[in-house]
Amino acid sequence: MYVDVALVPQEIGGKNLEDITVIVIDVLRAGTCIANAIANGCNGVIPTVSVEEAMDISRAYVRDDYLLCGERKSQKIEGFDLGNSPLEFSKDRVQGKKLIMTTTNGTKAIRLVKAAYEVIVGGFWNISACCEVAVGLKKDILIVCAGQDGNFAMEDAICAGGFAERFNTLMPGDIEGTDGYHTAHLLYNTLQNQLEKALSQTTHGQNLINAGFGMDVTAASKIDCVQVVPVFRGGHIVAMNLSGDERIHA
Amino acid sequence: MYVDVALVPQEIGGKNLEDITVIVIDVLRAGTCIANAIANGCNGVIPTVSVEEAMDISRAYVRDDYLLCGERKSQKIEGFDLGNSPLEFSKDRVQGKKLIMTTTNGTKAIRLVKAAYEVIVGGFWNISACCEVAVGLKKDILIVCAGQDGNFAMEDAICAGGFAERFNTLMPGDIEGTDGYHTAHLLYNTLQNQLEKALSQTTHGQNLINAGFGMDVTAASKIDCVQVVPVFRGGHIVAMNLSGDERIHA
Repeated sequence: MYVDVALVPQEIGGKNLEDITVIVIDVLRAGTCIANAIANGCNGVIPTVSVEEAMDISRAYVRDDYLLCGERKSQKIEGFDLGNSPLEFSKDRVQGKKLIMTTTNGTKAIRLVKAAYEVIVGGFWNISACCEVAVGLKKDILIVCAGQDGNFAMEDAICAGGFAERFNTLMPGDIEGTDGYHTAHLLYNTLQNQLEKALSQTTHGQNLINAGFGMDVTAASKIDCVQVVPVFRGGHIVAMNLSGDERIHA
Repeated sequence: MYVDVALVPQEIGGKNLEDITVIVIDVLRAGTCIANAIANGCNGVIPTVSVEEAMDISRAYVRDDYLLCGERKSQKIEGFDLGNSPLEFSKDRVQGKKLIMTTTNGTKAIRLVKAAYEVIVGGFWNISACCEVAVGLKKDILIVCAGQDGNFAMEDAICAGGFAERFNTLMPGDIEGTDGYHTAHLLYNTLQNQLEKALSQTTHGQNLINAGFGMDVTAASKIDCVQVVPVFRGGHIVAMNLSGDERIHA
């Protein structure tokens, strides 16, 4: 199996993703929020690329049925219900609700790869479940690091390396990795015993800590907190059925 | 001093480079060729983005005064004088000649950053000289990894990490590095004692070895073979005067 890691979304360029499983990683913080929201029974997440698009989409829903979520410059958007802190997405808040979300990096990266065979939203929070599903799909894999405002974000690459490590375990000797894959893997192997510290020292981690979101960095560095695999189908991120049903594209 | 590493050229986006020293790295192989050509007394290198542009430019020169150089898919371009193997650029071949060069990644990356305060073309071959000059310019630094066909190339990132290591030594405690900087540095620190092996195992290294260019990979992994600093000014890559003259933009 061929496994590539795009260290920034711009690496995707015009690549044909139709026959590829794409895993989007935005550890700080959208990917971690989405994993938690899906685990807590939200009625799907609609990733949008702008505040305006989020507002437009919300008009199709009854007010009680949705929550507007997301950030700009790390802060909750004015008038929105939730920001971008993983622990905000509790069962109390999100169960049964449609989440309409816009973030600086994660939701844009998810939208960018919508043409893929399957789009999985993964992070440390749900890394093992995502790896098992991705391997089971038996397609080549492209891990996309969402990055930060078009720049490389180390936390996403470290997490991509966590995926690489698990793929190596699940498919020993059966992976053809690219330079991005090997680089991410090396990062993870070097830093895996100090993930929270490593995430705290990244540019984005530092910015979040300085803005009072240190607990989000701590949360995002935890491994396998939930056993859900969010997949992006037909414009909505929903939980993949892990009980063994066949994958059906929406 | 702020030091960033763009792991792929696309990270540059629309950034304003006017007040920044940019170091372009294309270890395999254009950067290494250029360092050797400049050290061997060529009359400057004109980096071009296409075969057609190279041919067009050559018409302004007398045939004895220039050499057409470069590759497509690793092979010397038909009708050109030299390919893209560093050791081809010997004193015998290049002294006194204008080199008009087009390669898949390196010459394009150099052209992309032409608006920078200074553009240095660096690699392992001339790493120490380039670092000293870059530090002396006292500007923020952006290291651009040329990559491979728009994708990340690990050999360029390892070399960027070699620059990071030397900047840390030259300016202890005085560097504000980005995530790209720290990632490159970590790569280099892990692999610095096995550079030739590490370059040989990259995708591009493997492709070159399979195409019969293994000796180029060996050459490109050597450190400080020459003491020249190629700089890109007014469309030409020339040797920076290292005797202490003031930098004058062409």
